[in-house]
Amino acid sequence: MNGLKKLINHPEQVVEEMIEGILLAHPGRFERIEKTTVLTRKSTVQLNKVGLVSGGGSGHEPAHVGYVGEGMLDAAVFGEVFTSPTPDQILEAIKAVDYGKGVLLIIKNYTGDVMNFEMAQELAEAEGIQVEKVIVADDVAVEDSTFTIGRRGIAGTVLVHRIAGAMAETGATLQEVKEAAEKVINNVRSMGMAISACTVPAAGKPSFQLADDEMEIGIGIHGEPGINRTKIQSSKEVASILVNKILADFNYENSEVAVLINGLGATPEMELYILNKEVQRILTEKNVAIYKTWVGEYMTSLEMSGVSVTLLKLDNQMKELFAQKVNTLTFQE
Amino acid sequence: MNGLKKLINHPEQVVEEMIEGILLAHPGRFERIEKTTVLTRKSTVQLNKVGLVSGGGSGHEPAHVGYVGEGMLDAAVFGEVFTSPTPDQILEAIKAVDYGKGVLLIIKNYTGDVMNFEMAQELAEAEGIQVEKVIVADDVAVEDSTFTIGRRGIAGTVLVHRIAGAMAETGATLQEVKEAAEKVINNVRSMGMAISACTVPAAGKPSFQLADDEMEIGIGIHGEPGINRTKIQSSKEVASILVNKILADFNYENSEVAVLINGLGATPEMELYILNKEVQRILTEKNVAIYKTWVGEYMTSLEMSGVSVTLLKLDNQMKELFAQKVNTLTFQE
Repeated sequence: MNGLKKLINHPEQVVEEMIEGILLAHPGRFERIEKTTVLTRKSTVQLNKVGLVSGGGSGHEPAHVGYVGEGMLDAAVFGEVFTSPTPDQILEAIKAVDYGKGVLLIIKNYTGDVMNFEMAQELAEAEGIQVEKVIVADDVAVEDSTFTIGRRGIAGTVLVHRIAGAMAETGATLQEVKEAAEKVINNVRSMGMAISACTVPAAGKPSFQLADDEMEIGIGIHGEPGINRTKIQSSKEVASILVNKILADFNYENSEVAVLINGLGATPEMELYILNKEVQRILTEKNVAIYKTWVGEYMTSLEMSGVSVTLLKLDNQMKELFAQKVNTLTFQE
Repeated sequence: MNGLKKLINHPEQVVEEMIEGILLAHPGRFERIEKTTVLTRKSTVQLNKVGLVSGGGSGHEPAHVGYVGEGMLDAAVFGEVFTSPTPDQILEAIKAVDYGKGVLLIIKNYTGDVMNFEMAQELAEAEGIQVEKVIVADDVAVEDSTFTIGRRGIAGTVLVHRIAGAMAETGATLQEVKEAAEKVINNVRSMGMAISACTVPAAGKPSFQLADDEMEIGIGIHGEPGINRTKIQSSKEVASILVNKILADFNYENSEVAVLINGLGATPEMELYILNKEVQRILTEKNVAIYKTWVGEYMTSLEMSGVSVTLLKLDNQMKELFAQKVNTLTFQE
């Protein structure tokens, strides 16, 4: 009995027990680096590519473990819930996936993550490993937030994993993989909203409160405050608010885009697809051509109810990279 | 503004709008039969196999649309939320996927579904189509329920889709595909529990109420009452209750099983994996060998928070069929 309305054993052990449950469910897919919270891609062949490392606080599953595998990441580092992993854990991941061509770190822009990944980078470089980093800051909602200087990194990060991962698989150099990741970062924008909050197990109470008729626009993936709180609105209105804010920030008109409709944890697939319909209607009206769409849970906030919309402007290189094989828990294409 | 804490437009239009959103997200994957709620598998080649039809009330997504495609279903019929599709819609599905080798209906055991699928079967047979049916009743929680005479059909249905679908893909006869489905039905058992309810959009209020410290064991996927309501317990205790009830009903000892840990809609992946760890520990202690595991959302109840555990005793034929190619939204292996 844990005193929380959650299916867990002990609030302090959720990350360790989740990792054990993942390894039991998917034997042969991951290696765990002993005494760490790092899971790496298990490969039957000797890899000769740039290694890709991402991670961050837990509670955003399937991020990041769902993206470890052929065509995406080489390692995911699990922090405590909504808490950055420590530099020593990240260093272990870097060392494990340095196949001789260097390692790229893909970091969501949160102060703790950036600090710890950069510290790990310095430690790895001191050991002679070539390391580069990119920082994803796709959330157009707010310029600074509770946990961030500058924009937050949210669901757009998954598309960075995908493109950088496909690029690395081609045998590209560290610099080329970094450039591919940066191109995604420069062309991707996201924005989210929530109708209910989530509870961090160790905190024991919801991170914020919304009344029965309220929603919060521009919320972050840790429940950080957004732009404004309003009465709950229709899917049509929510789509309009999110897409228009994104389009005001970046010009997607007359271009081809990838669309990611991301559920934050408790939103039924039914509602995600209804929102997708509204988002695509607006984009079509604005002369934005939709090349590819994903609808599902990609970057969650425990049991938060809400969604984010992500748009990525594509070019031919990105379209080719999206067509490459990927084999992870969350993506198989 | 719909007056509900949901991301929808109109409570009466959720199914239609969801179908439109699905078609927009996945062009090329499905055909919609005009003026119906039937989505069929789009194939670039002329199919020469038994056609498989399933469906039921909406609100269980990804069931059943997520299972339409190579190696699984040929058509999914969407009813209104938690309401059986009508016989005329099911008949359209049967006619669309009769490739000349007959059609198998896979029905979850709910009174409305059984009645309407059987009526559609009669109508199709009157038109000269060979139709067989199987009824899935995997839920060991209760012998009869609000909506069912006999046991309810829940997440185990997905494994029937998978095995019958793989069998059909080999070119097997209608009788052989039906026998493969029945073997799964005879060897699969499930049981679920919930810590919070869901709200059918058109009903406007939760289907039941659980206090902040309560959970309900043996709940159905429409919020039908279960066996008993208790104080919330640990993942370890929940796993023990669910698995022991299943093992008391069917002897899985000294056999190889497939395990499906299914989230009912709002339960974080973290909690599903923690439960998986506990389930696998108990199975190992009881000499049940785990051949394959799935953890995720396969048969949901809108935004209900809870889980179900499904066990299927395998034989060599089933293991071979599980190894065959599958390409649907939810399964790609």
